[in-house]
Amino acid sequence: MNENLRIIRLIWLDSHISMDEMQFLDSVYELAVSYLDDERPLVDYQNFESLEKITDTNLQHGPMPYEQILLDIQHYLKYCVKTNQSGFMNPLWGGISTVALASELITSLTNTSMYTFELAPIGTVIEKSIISKMLGYVGYPDGAGTFTTGGSNGNMLGMLCARLKHNPMGMHTGYDNRNLVALVSEESHYSVVMAGNVIGIGKENIISIKSDSFGRMRADALAEEIKHLRAEGKDVFCVIATSGTTVKGSFDPLKELAEVCFRENIWLHVDAAWGGSALLSSKHTHLMDGIDLADSVCWDAHKMMGIPLICSSFLVKDESILAKVCNHTKSAHYLFQSEEKTNDLGHYSLQCGRRNDALKLFLAWRQKGDEGWSRLIDTYMKLADYVESKISLHARLELVSPREWTNICFRYSSEIIDQNALNKELRKRLMQNGNFMVSKAMIDGMYIIRLVISNPEITTSSLDNFIEEVVRLGEEIEKELPHK
Amino acid sequence: MNENLRIIRLIWLDSHISMDEMQFLDSVYELAVSYLDDERPLVDYQNFESLEKITDTNLQHGPMPYEQILLDIQHYLKYCVKTNQSGFMNPLWGGISTVALASELITSLTNTSMYTFELAPIGTVIEKSIISKMLGYVGYPDGAGTFTTGGSNGNMLGMLCARLKHNPMGMHTGYDNRNLVALVSEESHYSVVMAGNVIGIGKENIISIKSDSFGRMRADALAEEIKHLRAEGKDVFCVIATSGTTVKGSFDPLKELAEVCFRENIWLHVDAAWGGSALLSSKHTHLMDGIDLADSVCWDAHKMMGIPLICSSFLVKDESILAKVCNHTKSAHYLFQSEEKTNDLGHYSLQCGRRNDALKLFLAWRQKGDEGWSRLIDTYMKLADYVESKISLHARLELVSPREWTNICFRYSSEIIDQNALNKELRKRLMQNGNFMVSKAMIDGMYIIRLVISNPEITTSSLDNFIEEVVRLGEEIEKELPHK
Repeated sequence: MNENLRIIRLIWLDSHISMDEMQFLDSVYELAVSYLDDERPLVDYQNFESLEKITDTNLQHGPMPYEQILLDIQHYLKYCVKTNQSGFMNPLWGGISTVALASELITSLTNTSMYTFELAPIGTVIEKSIISKMLGYVGYPDGAGTFTTGGSNGNMLGMLCARLKHNPMGMHTGYDNRNLVALVSEESHYSVVMAGNVIGIGKENIISIKSDSFGRMRADALAEEIKHLRAEGKDVFCVIATSGTTVKGSFDPLKELAEVCFRENIWLHVDAAWGGSALLSSKHTHLMDGIDLADSVCWDAHKMMGIPLICSSFLVKDESILAKVCNHTKSAHYLFQSEEKTNDLGHYSLQCGRRNDALKLFLAWRQKGDEGWSRLIDTYMKLADYVESKISLHARLELVSPREWTNICFRYSSEIIDQNALNKELRKRLMQNGNFMVSKAMIDGMYIIRLVISNPEITTSSLDNFIEEVVRLGEEIEKELPHK
Repeated sequence: MNENLRIIRLIWLDSHISMDEMQFLDSVYELAVSYLDDERPLVDYQNFESLEKITDTNLQHGPMPYEQILLDIQHYLKYCVKTNQSGFMNPLWGGISTVALASELITSLTNTSMYTFELAPIGTVIEKSIISKMLGYVGYPDGAGTFTTGGSNGNMLGMLCARLKHNPMGMHTGYDNRNLVALVSEESHYSVVMAGNVIGIGKENIISIKSDSFGRMRADALAEEIKHLRAEGKDVFCVIATSGTTVKGSFDPLKELAEVCFRENIWLHVDAAWGGSALLSSKHTHLMDGIDLADSVCWDAHKMMGIPLICSSFLVKDESILAKVCNHTKSAHYLFQSEEKTNDLGHYSLQCGRRNDALKLFLAWRQKGDEGWSRLIDTYMKLADYVESKISLHARLELVSPREWTNICFRYSSEIIDQNALNKELRKRLMQNGNFMVSKAMIDGMYIIRLVISNPEITTSSLDNFIEEVVRLGEEIEKELPHK
């Protein structure tokens, strides 16, 4: 097929007969297939200015032929980051699931919004079934859930549920937020602070609790801080625990935190955007022990489960709270049809227009089965063990944090030059070489490299190559940079 | 190609040789192409219970072969609403753009997040260019913008900008929201009330302003309400005007409202999710006169411009306010690389993981050109004129609201039976017949049918068929329902 299309295209170009839209679509599909097949450098690195210069971003008065749009797409494919390659280990996701990709095509093709059963009949049936499956893993048999616009949004929704439970009237009269306090671990994701800003409690009212050497929130420190804040007259309405922190991959001790929250009558929300997938593996599910004691949780399928962005679930134990937070039916007579009220998923969402993000997860789950997910998580953990032990055994590499999940924080260590400058340069060269992309963070003033295993293309051999390139670059930079 | 694939599939099914993933992808693509080609009934109507019964939603322990996933997709395509057909006139969008569909495939294929230039280099260049184009139409040459998760989210972002401008310290210390008031027209979208709940000012502090007979917010009523509220000690921080209301398609008089807001020093946000596309037509752009005097606006490309969900822009005149609302950089050392700071779009967004929603709009714009959009809007307005005049000339049909945009609110009128019951039943039968889907609303106690022209498949002939079916069903129901 590909060869035929290529010939047809040459004929068009030659004869100046314009492509029609179906021929265009076929050609785009052909490009997609060859993108999946090829091994390419991760990125053809250009800075913003040069990339802007070589990209035709002109939005002109008249129309352009499909041939030009095809060239635009080829240009896009040339300069995007090839997140499906094995060397892509930068954010908390990578690789591509063919089933999920196919589902995305179907979702866009059958473009609809999830707000009513009328507009999304089969989508509603599917979303309900996948949410119910996830509620089972979390241990909220009578709970409810929805797909949100991402973990940041899910954390905000958790805080909104907490605030509503704390003071149901505030939803109507408005909240005096100056006294409301939410507690998080010092390792938590920045979105929690941002959510504090959005819901109006202010950044200063998001207070960090000390964590242990693994980066886990300390339950004793939490209990103490609550006592202290209450003595100060502050109104603590929510604790946000993290299962799988962004940098270290730490899991807060949910059972202990839940005990404190239960005793103090405070809502416990769990940001399990990254670590929630531990639930899928019988071997590693213990990391999430106590999740059934929490009140709400967000869990991203677009991270470790490899579903394309966005696929982020929010699950809550008490269905009625979510319904109340999202209650707007009286003002939307034009949308909700009373006949189908209970099956309109819009009653459980803060969005009006909402894409069907459930289908891709549903079909990927059908194809993999529980077993397949379990195997995926176990494989990732084994690969993380493997590369961790390689790093710890290597004289020039230094692990910077104990490990619980598939995050590995390390650096190239040098006694003769500034280590932060070295590792920063090292990360940059890795990317510019086009073989590997990894993230970075600061831990106790140290610039560290963060590697994550969350891409089905990663193998022991690709990790060997990675370590080899890191060491080679480290040695190279050590020779170039000024000595201390 | 299609025929070959069909034969290959028959061979597999026969020989029990399992499909591989690329053969699966080819077959899904084939299904997509035939979905685009076929004329099908809009929907094979089933209620929730029966649809649940005939759908295999089992998420089992073991894996399933690709053949089964293909059957799942066929089932999905059978029972979804065919939103690409000409009879689909229910929500504020419909039809399918081939270029945008192809772009969606590319976006999912090259799955990335828009937060940093590093992860989305070419995506960043493209998003900046399309935002800049839209800022030009709106008249904010030094403004900024982002793609949000939908109009509801854009309206919330407008309110957050307003609140921050009003009281910059509240972002840090938390707001006493009980006194903060936002003003909207009584015809505004329910998402504004929901946003009031999310940002914590409470539903009661979203106050409706009287509108005129066209459904447009009255500037004199606004000025009076501000005076009144201030006398009561309320703190009015934001006015939300609507360009293109959901039911009637009314456009608030932006110039007059902007004058009031300027005089009273209040932020003016415009919900132009639906009507913003009037800017694209030199003939109809006057509906948005005064938009350049507002402070912020949301404008959905996934409505009248026909881009698949979600594609929703938020544009703001003062770039620095949006940057402040989204300021979280200090806590995200692991994400933002200082070298590329100014080009990391995450600095202008409340999302962390964010899909590339710009590409589909960019490529559709390249293909259509300004001229193409203009023609699209003008055609929609002509079709709306056409059907409006047909309805007004028909003895049994009654227009229920004056018209400014492509919304047409009408009902079948009857003197012998309850008109609300009749029109409700009429709408339902239309859908069950599978030829047409339209929306409904209540206007002054009347159950009305809302038709919108926002689907490129609609023609005068499809509208003729629609009117014919409405009249036929009206007569049929009139005979069946009990007389007054």
